Amino acid sequence: MLSAVLEDAVGFIDRSRNLILQHFNSTREFKIKPDGSPVTLADLEAEDLLRELIRSHYPSHGVIGEEHGSDNPGAEFQWTIDPVDGTQNFAAGIPTFGTLLGIRYQGKAVLGIIDHPALDIRYAGAIGLGVTCNGKPVGNDRRISAYEVIASGTRSGYLRSGKGDIFDRLLAQFPDTRIYYDCFAHGLAISGALAAMVEYNVRIWDLTPVECLIQEAGGVYHRLDDPAALDSAGFTSSVHGQKDAVERVLRCIAG
Amino acid sequence: MLSAVLEDAVGFIDRSRNLILQHFNSTREFKIKPDGSPVTLADLEAEDLLRELIRSHYPSHGVIGEEHGSDNPGAEFQWTIDPVDGTQNFAAGIPTFGTLLGIRYQGKAVLGIIDHPALDIRYAGAIGLGVTCNGKPVGNDRRISAYEVIASGTRSGYLRSGKGDIFDRLLAQFPDTRIYYDCFAHGLAISGALAAMVEYNVRIWDLTPVECLIQEAGGVYHRLDDPAALDSAGFTSSVHGQKDAVERVLRCIAG
Repeated sequence: MLSAVLEDAVGFIDRSRNLILQHFNSTREFKIKPDGSPVTLADLEAEDLLRELIRSHYPSHGVIGEEHGSDNPGAEFQWTIDPVDGTQNFAAGIPTFGTLLGIRYQGKAVLGIIDHPALDIRYAGAIGLGVTCNGKPVGNDRRISAYEVIASGTRSGYLRSGKGDIFDRLLAQFPDTRIYYDCFAHGLAISGALAAMVEYNVRIWDLTPVECLIQEAGGVYHRLDDPAALDSAGFTSSVHGQKDAVERVLRCIAG
Repeated sequence: MLSAVLEDAVGFIDRSRNLILQHFNSTREFKIKPDGSPVTLADLEAEDLLRELIRSHYPSHGVIGEEHGSDNPGAEFQWTIDPVDGTQNFAAGIPTFGTLLGIRYQGKAVLGIIDHPALDIRYAGAIGLGVTCNGKPVGNDRRISAYEVIASGTRSGYLRSGKGDIFDRLLAQFPDTRIYYDCFAHGLAISGALAAMVEYNVRIWDLTPVECLIQEAGGVYHRLDDPAALDSAGFTSSVHGQKDAVERVLRCIAG
């Protein structure tokens, strides 16, 4: 059953990608939301489109999206949508932004898509079905001996909960750490290119796809916050990647 | 005359790109050099290829390369080669690495190419000839009002000269700063997607292309070190991008 849903979800993302690319290649106008973050026409229209497609194909399912709140909050299947993850990057013209589509079933992440319209890169998969990148399986050929690279979200994410000290400790212990602002890093962790990725204080729609895909690809997902926070669409944090590297990062975070 | 050289240089890079992609899509073996940094077969073979092409087309010119030192150090024209900038990224499977090819004439950066084989993105240009990205002009449509994003090289670059305090001050003042390890950030600064990019303690072959291209695209290049260091292929540092943002970053660095 999940394979049919994945096929539909990929079809939905084909359509949102086209819409987002049209905006990216034109003016990329944005407004600043009350919380200080930017929102673009691409965000709003892509989420509307995905919601409409989900509603018409799966009317009994719930939807949680970044721009338009929750529908059917009591349903067992909950779709999560971040139409443009990395809106700052999108607005500036940095092509690593992406669309995040996920499904949770009874709270468990069971399906995920990470789509980069401007880079033509797409990760997709579901529990029991493996993970592909542009149609090719990823995860099976992960080279554990590869040069080990750690990445993190921006310092501003940590500051939202007064955790700047953890960011600074991470950068002191791993001075080669890359800092990515968007889901580009999650795809790299799924494919094994990143040994571990740390993300502080983001939302359920930011992490549901990587939570599903990284485990399906043979990696681990370690949630740092109270699990209950997820259900209320509150902030959530995680370290995910290859088991050994994730454990090293967790030791660093513990101080 | 420079336009004919640019045409030749682009042809050289077409060939190095093919060679590098073959290695990226196979085993990506690397060795650790005495200085602790990795080197791959792709680095060594691509630099050999580019040196051979330059030597046969421009026998009177000099060449400075990351892996094989200097030829003709007294020549007025000096080509700079970094065959795989971001070797860590290449070895890990992160596709933002790139090839950097530049020319200095009497010490002045006059031509540059930044090529990303795995992303199919190439910036190329020369003094007086403008800058293109995949053949389309960049620079003329820079949107100064775009969401302003700052980026930096890794903390390890600053630590090489005991400048960790500058990195920490930058991240404190600009907590959304992205940290890139390779030349991906330089292309973004040239196209105007990044407002400013800071890079500490890299080599002449890392910065010659962006030094030429960013000025040709309407931005500014501010060298932070002693200019004499460049001639001996010593470490060099820079802030480059849009004038206002570069000035804000320089004020932060000054403390």
